[in-house]
Amino acid sequence: MKEEELYSIKDTNISLDMDIYQRAELFNQLWINQCKENKHLIYWVESNSRISSRMNIFDINEGLFKDVVSFVANDYLGMSGRDETIAAGIEAMRKYGTGACAAPVIGGYLDIHKKLELKIANFVGQEDSLIFSSGFGANTGVLNCLLGKNDIALIDSFVHTSVLDGLKGTNIKNIGHNDMEYLEMTLKNVQNLYTTKLVVVDGVYSQDGDLGLLPEISTLCKRYSAFLMVDDAHGIGVMGENGRGTLEYYNMLGEVDIVTGTFSKSFGCVGGFAATSKELVQYLRYYANTTMFSASVTPQVTASVIKAIELIEEDPSIRKRLWDNVEYLKSKLDEEGFDYKETKSPIFPIMIRHNFKAKEVAALLLKEGIYTNAICYPAVRNREARIRVGILATHKKSDINILLSALVKINKTIQFT
Amino acid sequence: MKEEELYSIKDTNISLDMDIYQRAELFNQLWINQCKENKHLIYWVESNSRISSRMNIFDINEGLFKDVVSFVANDYLGMSGRDETIAAGIEAMRKYGTGACAAPVIGGYLDIHKKLELKIANFVGQEDSLIFSSGFGANTGVLNCLLGKNDIALIDSFVHTSVLDGLKGTNIKNIGHNDMEYLEMTLKNVQNLYTTKLVVVDGVYSQDGDLGLLPEISTLCKRYSAFLMVDDAHGIGVMGENGRGTLEYYNMLGEVDIVTGTFSKSFGCVGGFAATSKELVQYLRYYANTTMFSASVTPQVTASVIKAIELIEEDPSIRKRLWDNVEYLKSKLDEEGFDYKETKSPIFPIMIRHNFKAKEVAALLLKEGIYTNAICYPAVRNREARIRVGILATHKKSDINILLSALVKINKTIQFT
Repeated sequence: MKEEELYSIKDTNISLDMDIYQRAELFNQLWINQCKENKHLIYWVESNSRISSRMNIFDINEGLFKDVVSFVANDYLGMSGRDETIAAGIEAMRKYGTGACAAPVIGGYLDIHKKLELKIANFVGQEDSLIFSSGFGANTGVLNCLLGKNDIALIDSFVHTSVLDGLKGTNIKNIGHNDMEYLEMTLKNVQNLYTTKLVVVDGVYSQDGDLGLLPEISTLCKRYSAFLMVDDAHGIGVMGENGRGTLEYYNMLGEVDIVTGTFSKSFGCVGGFAATSKELVQYLRYYANTTMFSASVTPQVTASVIKAIELIEEDPSIRKRLWDNVEYLKSKLDEEGFDYKETKSPIFPIMIRHNFKAKEVAALLLKEGIYTNAICYPAVRNREARIRVGILATHKKSDINILLSALVKINKTIQFT
Repeated sequence: MKEEELYSIKDTNISLDMDIYQRAELFNQLWINQCKENKHLIYWVESNSRISSRMNIFDINEGLFKDVVSFVANDYLGMSGRDETIAAGIEAMRKYGTGACAAPVIGGYLDIHKKLELKIANFVGQEDSLIFSSGFGANTGVLNCLLGKNDIALIDSFVHTSVLDGLKGTNIKNIGHNDMEYLEMTLKNVQNLYTTKLVVVDGVYSQDGDLGLLPEISTLCKRYSAFLMVDDAHGIGVMGENGRGTLEYYNMLGEVDIVTGTFSKSFGCVGGFAATSKELVQYLRYYANTTMFSASVTPQVTASVIKAIELIEEDPSIRKRLWDNVEYLKSKLDEEGFDYKETKSPIFPIMIRHNFKAKEVAALLLKEGIYTNAICYPAVRNREARIRVGILATHKKSDINILLSALVKINKTIQFT
């Protein structure tokens, strides 16, 4: 199929002058049907096993459940499936129940929530922190409450959607990606125009796996009186000598204004946090809508995350296994000459650079018993379509070998590298 | 203290021309310090027990942990603490781990997620549903993705903050509260001006406990080609003959376009859902940011909520206990002549109508071993400050008697009714 004949989800989005049912109908007619016809039904794949390195999933194209080697989880350290984190979750549930059914400000604030707040703050080198039932809500809540019409957010092009959703009531300036010259020019320009200037970047970028140039960015922020917020969703638990994140990797713990992150990656659950000064945390407690008007994190998640952080602190061998796997995949991809983005994290973007082919490769991998994600336009630019492979500490070398063999085989049919 | 000397959190919000640290400092100096001085530290109260009818909490004003009778939980049916829901959560965690660490679209979609989606859809009389890691995210995700610049949301004055946060990219018209005349006029006015007209109301309003006038609203929506979304966060599990929510109460199941709700109230966990037609759900799966770009609901929550719905379906005695308690409290309040809003739900707003006194009453109740919430300006209007009492199926008559005796006693010192 020709690239220009392929629909993207951009074709039926909100900008159309159609009501909600018409848009939904068109989306089903165009995009969903095309996926069906092309046997590209590779999203919303149902799993009846843990989301981990080995899964049992329903292959919609073939119409059957099957065992696969999987590279879709963000549970980098395998925390979700460990006896210790599960036991901690069970214990908390027995003591506190299945949920803490109130917003924390008006009744849903458990002692273990407080314990986790302090544990995270300490882990990422900040004074205090606040936890949220989703990482998405951490970013939207913090930004929404901190920045108003007098303020401006200077954001890297590749920040997460949650950052964008949190900035709807303020001014936004895109600063490109890790472009220091442009950042400096922009900081100079806005210096006297806004009350709060907040630069928002990632520690580890979720699609390319590269790092934010935090030391240079921080220096510029200080020079031009801007504040710095780092979303380290993919860095926490993974980067740095002790897994304390991208700021530890750069030896910069405590040197930025706000660190946000998630519980759904290295910590193996769901939820998120914002860590900053004591006074700002106190402010967020009463002004961030996603905590003020939203029920507390479950006891299970709270206890399992506390345990996950303890394990990261106590057992460096878990992270070592992850990095061994990362190095192993890197060497194998180099050996076979595949085109992948120079990642510094467990995220491997294997470049296909063609939206249709990317879906085709993912569908063929699935047929071979390997679950990966095709990331296409508009999630990435057209010539940047890719297979996204996430490496976990729990992968075996043999899992990686299976992936490589399949890629080599598929590359013979569909030349993509 | 005079009412006009009391700070509200409105005094240090985003509209000030101060940077984020200055605002936070001022907030701590003014509001937090005033709470300390007045011994009104009644928010963010730490609990080392379940959030239920009896709790063990830290009384900050007195500096000690103590046992209290509590009326702050939204876990109306006591689902959070039941053996069955806890056992279901444990079983799911043992099978699926502590989290499903990926967004559902790209790997984090469990078979039990699908089961829950269908269960909820069936429960609220819709074709299909989509689940979210917070109820807040359900509302923002749905509205944000459905309504654009060509569209308009007509919202009741008392919808939840999450609705407002979801409407930042579209047009909004406030239609007052259950004001049918004004709604009709507005519907007429906007009829030909926008592509999608979506009326957003609650089933049960969270502060007053009254109901949306859904039959009348629905009729008007149909007459003027508007769609109707009902946020039934406080109605699901509670209202209607079988607990299927406010739409069942009105015998209107399946008659509105979208139903949203939460897992943190009658279902005893955290999370939320949007239930609607099959095609719209399919659309939301790819366009609602809070699911597309956010990790899945935990296995524990998923399984515990499935079990909670089963219990609601199988054992009407749980709901009967709730309604018995509601009637009992009502009769006692009437007996003592207290001023409370005419609620049709387990939410009792005991009116103090004075912000300072409301905090004072809550603080004195806490001293007496009773945990309630003072709801003040700006959460409600100045003359509407109140003590919010939430009744649960797990309350004993004696708990309610304790509350009443304390209110009578405090009313003798601080005349409030």
